[in-house]
Amino acid sequence: MERIYADNAATTRISDEVLAAMMPFLKENFANPSSYHSAGREVRVAIENARKKIASVIDCDAAEIYFTSGGTESDNWAIRGAARLSNGKKHIISSKIEHNAVLNTLKSLEKDGFEITYLDVDRNGFVSPESLEKAIRPDTALITVMFANNETGAVQPTDEIGKIAKKHGVLFHSDVVQAFGHLPINVKKTNIDMLSFSGHKFNGPKGVGGLYIKRGVMLPNLIYGGKQENGRRAGTENAAAIVGMGAAAEIAAKEMKTESARLETLREKLICGLLSGIDGCVRNTPEKNSLPGIANVSLPFAEGEALVLMLDLKGITASSGSACMSGTKDPSHVLTAMGLDEKTAHGAVRFSFDRYTTEKDADTILSVFPDIAKKLRDLSRI
Amino acid sequence: MERIYADNAATTRISDEVLAAMMPFLKENFANPSSYHSAGREVRVAIENARKKIASVIDCDAAEIYFTSGGTESDNWAIRGAARLSNGKKHIISSKIEHNAVLNTLKSLEKDGFEITYLDVDRNGFVSPESLEKAIRPDTALITVMFANNETGAVQPTDEIGKIAKKHGVLFHSDVVQAFGHLPINVKKTNIDMLSFSGHKFNGPKGVGGLYIKRGVMLPNLIYGGKQENGRRAGTENAAAIVGMGAAAEIAAKEMKTESARLETLREKLICGLLSGIDGCVRNTPEKNSLPGIANVSLPFAEGEALVLMLDLKGITASSGSACMSGTKDPSHVLTAMGLDEKTAHGAVRFSFDRYTTEKDADTILSVFPDIAKKLRDLSRI
Repeated sequence: MERIYADNAATTRISDEVLAAMMPFLKENFANPSSYHSAGREVRVAIENARKKIASVIDCDAAEIYFTSGGTESDNWAIRGAARLSNGKKHIISSKIEHNAVLNTLKSLEKDGFEITYLDVDRNGFVSPESLEKAIRPDTALITVMFANNETGAVQPTDEIGKIAKKHGVLFHSDVVQAFGHLPINVKKTNIDMLSFSGHKFNGPKGVGGLYIKRGVMLPNLIYGGKQENGRRAGTENAAAIVGMGAAAEIAAKEMKTESARLETLREKLICGLLSGIDGCVRNTPEKNSLPGIANVSLPFAEGEALVLMLDLKGITASSGSACMSGTKDPSHVLTAMGLDEKTAHGAVRFSFDRYTTEKDADTILSVFPDIAKKLRDLSRI
Repeated sequence: MERIYADNAATTRISDEVLAAMMPFLKENFANPSSYHSAGREVRVAIENARKKIASVIDCDAAEIYFTSGGTESDNWAIRGAARLSNGKKHIISSKIEHNAVLNTLKSLEKDGFEITYLDVDRNGFVSPESLEKAIRPDTALITVMFANNETGAVQPTDEIGKIAKKHGVLFHSDVVQAFGHLPINVKKTNIDMLSFSGHKFNGPKGVGGLYIKRGVMLPNLIYGGKQENGRRAGTENAAAIVGMGAAAEIAAKEMKTESARLETLREKLICGLLSGIDGCVRNTPEKNSLPGIANVSLPFAEGEALVLMLDLKGITASSGSACMSGTKDPSHVLTAMGLDEKTAHGAVRFSFDRYTTEKDADTILSVFPDIAKKLRDLSRI
């Protein structure tokens, strides 16, 4: 059975070109890039090239990119760092649909005396810039709102948020993990002060990510030690992964326009097919302002986990939401925040695509999923 | 020119067997191990197998091993976590010869009001258990002393330190990054509460490491987010690297006895050859109680960096100390703490071996280095 992988929002496979770029650094070019011998300097050059490639994706200077172990570390660094920078200000604004890397970091700050405003979202999963502006207080130290949601794909009004943050002089961090390499982002135009990204969400390797820190933002370290990353993030550089992420960023930037259009077409074909093929099927991914590759629907009469396991048996790898949430019995906090009732939230399935997804894949899902839905509906009626 | 790599204390190359074990997880087995579909579960099994392999190296339970992005993150987690656990206690004991991952983390805590006692070392670079015991106060929250020094190889009296820590009920963390996989370690016998290690120091990949946390030590997170690592270290698992580190640990454990003896013989051959071949050459690596693979000597009439660059031109990759310290003009804090005068500390060169180092390599270094030393000595006399 040829399997279809449609869980690319959880993680993507490393592109062949990316792995090829990494291999020398997993083999012969293994020296420590902080060493000043020639073997070390060679690796250093490759790391700095990767930094430039990453920077060009979001239109910043290479010196504003700091490599980390991934999106979660970047979120922790930005948020906990901003809290330490805050000069007595004890209020942070975020949203109810953030990834747990943001939400649980904020929870830890609540214990340290911070007060967090979690903005509501509308039925389509969008934060309202007006409510954000209303929430700003004289002691607001940080706004942290994601660029695009990892469960539904909803792309937030980040330009407006950036404008409001600038107007009020509040630091603005955005978790861009799910959108980086998939949508055009310009940190200067959008006025983002800090931006988190992760390699394995755009066909790069796992275990590597980064944080853009606008020049002048004196974010304290999360990780202290050696002089790596200009003294701001210590630890021997994960050179192979950094080079791989650079290669993946370059490919993503080059293919963004065509891939974005292609995947959006596939996404709409799939969602519309499911809506018309399955009675009671509900669309969770907004039609406009959403990531090209994420299709989230709910079957209110079924359990998302059961749907995913049945799809798995049919050779289709999908998800009922965030992998980082697996193991919880609670319905998705994202779908709940959108106002879905518990049953509908529990019945969510997310299909997510990447550059390796074909139209045939979408067709196969369309041909298989309605039958599974029917079986589960029949079971739920017994 | 066939190059000789003798900077394995900075980083090692990934063993062929280790890379082979990693490859499936860089290619087809790329799913998110936190996903509950079959593709994810397969990766999860591999991660848990790696955890068992790591645990068996230090004789702990697999559930006491938490994967991180490397030794530096582990050190930060252990030390900053212990500080948050400290219940008002504001004193920490460490040593003057720690890695910067420990020293700079401690410095950051000084700014938060912690008082740190940095223990002296003797001429051979050893901490004295007596002075450690004397330094303990009622408000001592943590002892953090490394297992073996990364510059000289000096293996600290960790058994005695563990006993003292236990006797006084003080939490004990050890940075075991340089010794893990090279020397036998038993966390229970030695009474270590937290232990940092890093994959790339024993022929595993970069970008991965771990922290042993004794069951019952309620260390707060450094990185919050998803439920990975039993909720204690969030972020999508770097599966390929974890599997690689597990494979490397298994090989290291199997070869430890024979490799340790072989490398110690090579080390002594090299050091004794250099001492007899170069006038004024000083031994910095202790004869007893030191890592098998590290040979550190000083040429008081030369600059370590110049020696390393000249060795580099002759095809030999060595180091003048820690790669994480490169770029500083200060002499090594380790050698200075041992009482070396500034000239001798500045003239240090470290050769470090691994399982790929041959006797021929040591012989080549012995045949090349005295000439380089002579040239530099002649230059310094002009």
